[in-house]
Amino acid sequence: MTSDTFSSAMRALMVPRSVAIVGATERPDASSSFVMRNLMAHGFDGKILPVNPKGGSVFGYTAATSLSDLAEPADVAVIGISAERVLPALEEAARNGIKAAVVLASGFGELDDAGRRRQDELVDLARRNGMAICGPNCLGLFNLNSGAALYSSRLSTGMLKGGLALVSHSGATAIALGNTGRIGISHIVSSGNSAATDIPDYLDYLATDDATKAIGVVLEAIRDPQAFADAMQTVHAAGKPVIVLRAGRSESGARATAAHTGSLAGAGEAYTSFFRRNGVLEAGDMDEFLETAVLCSGTRRPRRGKGLAVLGVSGGGVAHVSDIAEETGITLPPFHCGTVAALRTLLPPFATPQNPLDTTGIVFADASIYGQVLDVIATDPEIGLIVAAQDAPTGLDQDGAAEYLGIAGAAADFAKQSETPVVFMSNLSSGHHPAVKAAAARGVTVMNGTRATLRAIKAVMNVEVASLDEGKPWAAPDPTWLQRIGSGVPLTEREAKAFLAANGLPTTQEYLATTADEAAAAAEKTGFPVVMKIESPDIAHKTEAGGVRLGIASESEAREAFETIIANARAYDPKADLRGVVVQEMVTGGVEALVGLVRHEPFGLGLVVGVGGVLVELIKDAAFELLPIDKPLALDMIDRTKLSQLLAGYRGAAAADADGLADLMVALSDAALRYDDVLEAIDLNPVAVLPKGRGVRLLDALVIGKKPA
Amino acid sequence: MTSDTFSSAMRALMVPRSVAIVGATERPDASSSFVMRNLMAHGFDGKILPVNPKGGSVFGYTAATSLSDLAEPADVAVIGISAERVLPALEEAARNGIKAAVVLASGFGELDDAGRRRQDELVDLARRNGMAICGPNCLGLFNLNSGAALYSSRLSTGMLKGGLALVSHSGATAIALGNTGRIGISHIVSSGNSAATDIPDYLDYLATDDATKAIGVVLEAIRDPQAFADAMQTVHAAGKPVIVLRAGRSESGARATAAHTGSLAGAGEAYTSFFRRNGVLEAGDMDEFLETAVLCSGTRRPRRGKGLAVLGVSGGGVAHVSDIAEETGITLPPFHCGTVAALRTLLPPFATPQNPLDTTGIVFADASIYGQVLDVIATDPEIGLIVAAQDAPTGLDQDGAAEYLGIAGAAADFAKQSETPVVFMSNLSSGHHPAVKAAAARGVTVMNGTRATLRAIKAVMNVEVASLDEGKPWAAPDPTWLQRIGSGVPLTEREAKAFLAANGLPTTQEYLATTADEAAAAAEKTGFPVVMKIESPDIAHKTEAGGVRLGIASESEAREAFETIIANARAYDPKADLRGVVVQEMVTGGVEALVGLVRHEPFGLGLVVGVGGVLVELIKDAAFELLPIDKPLALDMIDRTKLSQLLAGYRGAAAADADGLADLMVALSDAALRYDDVLEAIDLNPVAVLPKGRGVRLLDALVIGKKPA
Repeated sequence: MTSDTFSSAMRALMVPRSVAIVGATERPDASSSFVMRNLMAHGFDGKILPVNPKGGSVFGYTAATSLSDLAEPADVAVIGISAERVLPALEEAARNGIKAAVVLASGFGELDDAGRRRQDELVDLARRNGMAICGPNCLGLFNLNSGAALYSSRLSTGMLKGGLALVSHSGATAIALGNTGRIGISHIVSSGNSAATDIPDYLDYLATDDATKAIGVVLEAIRDPQAFADAMQTVHAAGKPVIVLRAGRSESGARATAAHTGSLAGAGEAYTSFFRRNGVLEAGDMDEFLETAVLCSGTRRPRRGKGLAVLGVSGGGVAHVSDIAEETGITLPPFHCGTVAALRTLLPPFATPQNPLDTTGIVFADASIYGQVLDVIATDPEIGLIVAAQDAPTGLDQDGAAEYLGIAGAAADFAKQSETPVVFMSNLSSGHHPAVKAAAARGVTVMNGTRATLRAIKAVMNVEVASLDEGKPWAAPDPTWLQRIGSGVPLTEREAKAFLAANGLPTTQEYLATTADEAAAAAEKTGFPVVMKIESPDIAHKTEAGGVRLGIASESEAREAFETIIANARAYDPKADLRGVVVQEMVTGGVEALVGLVRHEPFGLGLVVGVGGVLVELIKDAAFELLPIDKPLALDMIDRTKLSQLLAGYRGAAAADADGLADLMVALSDAALRYDDVLEAIDLNPVAVLPKGRGVRLLDALVIGKKPA
Repeated sequence: MTSDTFSSAMRALMVPRSVAIVGATERPDASSSFVMRNLMAHGFDGKILPVNPKGGSVFGYTAATSLSDLAEPADVAVIGISAERVLPALEEAARNGIKAAVVLASGFGELDDAGRRRQDELVDLARRNGMAICGPNCLGLFNLNSGAALYSSRLSTGMLKGGLALVSHSGATAIALGNTGRIGISHIVSSGNSAATDIPDYLDYLATDDATKAIGVVLEAIRDPQAFADAMQTVHAAGKPVIVLRAGRSESGARATAAHTGSLAGAGEAYTSFFRRNGVLEAGDMDEFLETAVLCSGTRRPRRGKGLAVLGVSGGGVAHVSDIAEETGITLPPFHCGTVAALRTLLPPFATPQNPLDTTGIVFADASIYGQVLDVIATDPEIGLIVAAQDAPTGLDQDGAAEYLGIAGAAADFAKQSETPVVFMSNLSSGHHPAVKAAAARGVTVMNGTRATLRAIKAVMNVEVASLDEGKPWAAPDPTWLQRIGSGVPLTEREAKAFLAANGLPTTQEYLATTADEAAAAAEKTGFPVVMKIESPDIAHKTEAGGVRLGIASESEAREAFETIIANARAYDPKADLRGVVVQEMVTGGVEALVGLVRHEPFGLGLVVGVGGVLVELIKDAAFELLPIDKPLALDMIDRTKLSQLLAGYRGAAAADADGLADLMVALSDAALRYDDVLEAIDLNPVAVLPKGRGVRLLDALVIGKKPA
């Protein structure tokens, strides 16, 4: 919903000039009472309009007896009454031209069937009237600049005003993050059930909000990925970073599926792929979220494609940073020889001019050296961000803290004029002594905790909005295959391969034999050696059923193998529909890869690639990305896996055709989008990746259709 | 060194009653000047005895002209003069009956060859005289109870006095950890180069120190594992936990070796194994170190073998804890049905009585419910520790913080009387508002940061001192093998197997053939199919050399394979000494394991077990433990690997003989200790683990001797 009407409704919600409070009362535990007290305490500069059927006065404001009784429509109605009375109140608001509402009550979708029906009605009402509705089951929202504190629990007066907007499915987490004193806040939104108005709507608004420079989102789930992605485009165009913390991600778990692919890529990977593709900074915990927000709020962003320099005044301190950097996957590039030479002239002979750099204690005596060291590092062509690690613990006495002021000041002075950004970091999450922090904060971004800081830096330095070649129109799906896959009857391996071959994937030459003689003849025609496999719609994992024989070298062996395979399959599943044995070209050599598709709603299908073969679940080597996959992304995915080591020519083997594998991935992605309506999962395992230039061959395939509705 | 003399020297160092300061001066930047000012500022209750050749008065204390000039020997001499003058001063101290010294100057082992010689002389002097010497190249030490602040940089007067002793190779890190205000300190020791007196000596002393309840160690390296292990026994006997942070661990890296085993277990694994076996709590970063120390300082330790309960007042908050718990490898056990029933009666109907538990906001209105919930959870038989997660951020105003005081107080009251320990945790590392912290800290352990807290909890709940069956005396090594392995000439596979067979490891039947005819005859004798492999001391990785053929099924095939293998090996390395082709029993079926030995000094040899086969470096599945390995430890190691899944019967296969594999590991450990003087590494890959009851078979072996000195 991005119409002008809705945009003005969102503005009414986020920057109201007048607020009607339905169910206004002075009763201290009433949500409406909290809202009115918050509005007064935070100096709301608009009109406060209590509504109570009994009229009278609430906190000194004359109450209207109903919304219709208001002299003019309020910008927003805060509905402070119980769930069953909410819809009539919203109807009345809509009738009276009110475009926005905050519904505080619980008792909606989160509770029971009656609640879910009530929530559906609320959504319908919002759609019909173009209303923006925060909630239900929420704490409300708070605009720190206007004092519009439509919030149903007490808001601290100590919250700093600033550029970070917080939008959260969890009100308590937003309050915790908003009240650290580390970063200034523009808006707090506790969106609760987010029934009618969800995160993308808030993002759209915040993209246009002058007070907001960065946006932090705490979310439980994404319901409409397209809306979220569209909103991210708007936010990116406005140049505002978005940081996300997902709460409750452990509970989602990997879902059971007949395909291996599912066990290799859970819902978390789908979210991560979605965030990566849309340039969202994903934080792993609340500390990381906060440090990322602090880093993004700095005046200068790290230089992309460059590395990190670390300096400190103690060997132990920089070693600690270096240890955590390695664990975080951050490489500290060696300094350029010019940097090394310049550092040698600045530092005492027993200092080692390397990255990470221990300046030694000399900088305590003369902080100007610290500033000069920063100047030198800043000009290093490989360095995009400097981390000045300096512990100055909070428990120091004033004289103790004073010893660090020179360093803090030098960092601040440097940062003010440097093109290369610098952060002043405490190894301990408890941060620097307040006096040291104050001295540094004059000019430099101050961050706390080695682990959270380095993870934040990694996220910010790596973020980009993927640009995909999505221009190619898909060919129309074949109605026969649409129907077959959607029928609910599993495809046999032969059918699966035929389907994939029809979509341009390279399969093996093969025949179906229904007797031992047919098997012998087919093997002869194919050329020895051959592979033989049971053909049955009821047997998904053929090896486990004793239904696969490799390296059949003669007609007599083929006859014997036919009988053995049928007997094994019969014993494995006496009720299985056995349709014969497939005789197949035996592809030898090559690297075994797995390529698969797995569905993660609400994002749809994603593609997995990794090491294939029988040990796939043990190796758990996989890169996952949501569709579509283009060639550069396919190659990048391969690079992220251990498979890439195998393809490069592991232990003396010839290099394999990674390019051919990437082509297969793109072809599978194209096919999957054509048949998106009926596909649930695909497992191609193994895919034989032959030596360079000889392409790939799909040896086994499992195609799983969606359960028919 | 644990003699009585040395013990009294350590006491003199750690609790001196009189301190001589050699090189005493009032010059503000002199280290001796810092020491004297610290002694005065921290109220040292013993004698301060400046020594200066010129005599006179220093800071109001009359200076002796030399150590010999003192009326009675000081307990400790602080040597505040430059490196080249240190040894004469120490000699004089020793002559005058001074048993302990602090050497502040740098210019010793850390600098150059002259410094290293100087340091050797210092160590020798200490040994000869039974002296305890802190340093050189250190900041010194500080006894907070006596005010003995023998420290050469300013010490904050704000440091809390308490039960944690900090011993650190890095002075700056000790100061950072000591001044957080989170935990009280008994001693700070900056041991610098730790030349004569190292961490184990300090541990021995601190085990006996009444003021010390827990010990934190920041170390760069362990030099004498046996001394460290012995000291740990003493500290354990005194019931004091030891927490270690290792700085600079990323730089050690995995060392290059011809064996695969080396790439599977680096120096970090050796340290971790050493710490685990000696009951040392290893922290991953400074935050974890601090939280672990705080947790250990609580009055009650978590109940071993029990699980963790998490409760909070918001769904988002407990979901966050649950997410990080999963990532940390902590499982939250489900509540007992009795617990669930009791929680139902306490909480509103929309609350879900599960672990983690969201009490809902009801506890803000009535904190007694919070206390009752804690009471109920504490009686759950599966729960050994309760984490009460409550954000109350530091930036709240006083009224905002007041809202949390009920909960904090209820947690404190509960903790004071509960057998089940509880910690009051803030998700944000910046911790709780001071008022909330104060209310909680009346009775409960307060911890900061979800990630650091959960990692600390995991370490403390898992710690144990391994008890190994080390009673068995090793058989004497065979002098022939000692000489052969130590000769510097690599063993061939056949020799390696003969060596291992002689030490009780199960190898395969095999013959060496030097002609194609011999190969055919040997194959006939062994029984088809057979394996054939090149035999050469110069070819370590036979498969890469084209030197291995499997499944040889006839005499003619054996002849042809002989010629091919020789030709391949010749092409691979024209200079290789080719001794023939080994014809070997072909073991089919079974699970491929890797078992290996790798040396990590100073700890010596350790054993690796994991998935074997050609993909071993890709799978990187390995458990590592230092020797000796007994059967229970061997089985536990197998359990930690993915190999255990394969052994259990992966994808329908029969269960394999894990017990036989454990026996092989114990036999290898025994053999390794017998030949410890000459062995550098061993790779057994693959070891075929046959179906249960059929044992294991070692198929390939690489034995690497130490380089002869």
